[in-house]
Amino acid sequence: MTVYGGIEAGGSKWECAVGTGPDDLRATKTIPTTTPAATIDEAVAFFEREGPVDAIGIGSFGPLDGNPASSTWGYITTTPKPGWAQTDFGQEIRRRLAVPVAFDTDVNASALGEHRWGATQGLDTSCYITVGTGIGGGGLVEGKLLHGLMHPEFGHMRIPHDRDADPFHGACPYHGDCWEGLASGRALEARWGRPADKLGDAAAWDLEASSLALGLVSVVSVLSPERIVLGGGVMKQPGLLALVRQQVRALLNGYVPRVDEREDYIVSPELGTHAGVLGAIALARTHDHESTRRG
Amino acid sequence: MTVYGGIEAGGSKWECAVGTGPDDLRATKTIPTTTPAATIDEAVAFFEREGPVDAIGIGSFGPLDGNPASSTWGYITTTPKPGWAQTDFGQEIRRRLAVPVAFDTDVNASALGEHRWGATQGLDTSCYITVGTGIGGGGLVEGKLLHGLMHPEFGHMRIPHDRDADPFHGACPYHGDCWEGLASGRALEARWGRPADKLGDAAAWDLEASSLALGLVSVVSVLSPERIVLGGGVMKQPGLLALVRQQVRALLNGYVPRVDEREDYIVSPELGTHAGVLGAIALARTHDHESTRRG
Repeated sequence: MTVYGGIEAGGSKWECAVGTGPDDLRATKTIPTTTPAATIDEAVAFFEREGPVDAIGIGSFGPLDGNPASSTWGYITTTPKPGWAQTDFGQEIRRRLAVPVAFDTDVNASALGEHRWGATQGLDTSCYITVGTGIGGGGLVEGKLLHGLMHPEFGHMRIPHDRDADPFHGACPYHGDCWEGLASGRALEARWGRPADKLGDAAAWDLEASSLALGLVSVVSVLSPERIVLGGGVMKQPGLLALVRQQVRALLNGYVPRVDEREDYIVSPELGTHAGVLGAIALARTHDHESTRRG
Repeated sequence: MTVYGGIEAGGSKWECAVGTGPDDLRATKTIPTTTPAATIDEAVAFFEREGPVDAIGIGSFGPLDGNPASSTWGYITTTPKPGWAQTDFGQEIRRRLAVPVAFDTDVNASALGEHRWGATQGLDTSCYITVGTGIGGGGLVEGKLLHGLMHPEFGHMRIPHDRDADPFHGACPYHGDCWEGLASGRALEARWGRPADKLGDAAAWDLEASSLALGLVSVVSVLSPERIVLGGGVMKQPGLLALVRQQVRALLNGYVPRVDEREDYIVSPELGTHAGVLGAIALARTHDHESTRRG
């Protein structure tokens, strides 16, 4: 029987697993993200110990090169994370473990995992957005994962920002007050001087919901997803999802009636603790070559 | 040999054609858009006279129902255009001419036409945006036309708007200062009191370029197209495309290096006068059932 490996590669930790799906995770391991060499070594050792596996899926932080025609396919590219720019990750894993590797963004992996086993099963067009330290998004259009020129970077779109009412300059080193610069966990902490999970002020959460909704309206306008899954640490704030839904409807103002008809248009992820690594296993399952592109 | 019919259905005129592509347009006809019954009658008469054709593609103004599983597939739905809301268009053409009909948005048809014969040949992910009376967009992701919940409505995303520097309230009846509300031809006329083609003021065009660029950054962030085709009457303004390119780069600020590397990242359509109806023929060619969805 075919067995898969998955790596959810985050900026602070990696989650590795062997299995075939949510009901069959045979082994899992969390590895702190240190240097590329040490972190990859630990992941390889885990799969050597717990394997063999027939294919590995990697959902990684980025930006990354997911183009199978590129000589730097499998690299984490221009990340500002110290020591990690231009890291060969996918090719190294493929070489060391001698198995096919599917390599994509963490958010595309999560979008695929939710599509296979979670909140977006059976839909043609869907997306997964994480609101955590940063903001990222991935998705499927008519069953195809979004790739394109690089890969989506939902967090870096611009949204309206009333500087009179809210003089915060934004937390993105590239764009200041882009979506991520205004509404990510990092932005909340920079704006209010304490992390999101210590933020009790209702006005702060109203503003957060309204910033999130402005970006979601762009996602609806450009991609027209049938459902949006909204995950990440910031979304754990009680009541935030309901506020976001309300604001998205107010902003769309009846223009897309189907959004108004569906209470479950914007939802939380259905896959729990292991959502990220299950997405990586979903990548491995659907793509048994090095490419996630032509799937 | 197979011959196709195409209808580019716009709000003020329809362009009908019989042929197989840019080098083989055997007959074309322009019909003023009057009432649904009269306009559809004229189109049917044209194909009866110039046909027979084996399939018809329709690229229509919207919003529309392009979901082949829906009982109102082929309808123009909630358009504010007087007399046209809830018009059965695709099913009526199919019934009257007894041929398969592919029905999609005008901008998806144009995106497909440019992909088949024009500026985006060979690319996996691309989009076509028209800046005319309104703003609309369509595109292909990994070869699949964008559909989703309804269809994309690029024009209705929100963009930053500095009301101190620019107190114009926006021209969109639903959203005020959404992208279309700020940067469409209708918006230019409402803002400056004269139509775009009578607007000489450099400051006006700088502002227009910057509004267009803000929306394009959202398109790049969400969809990551490998190339953007920017058509429509407003884009005929000399120098505007160059200004838009410059502003998009300034806003992205090096975050997507491949946009900086390509002078031809944002381009004009390559298909000329008959671009719209060629898109409709491209729709007919690739889809010989009533559905454009599963193609």
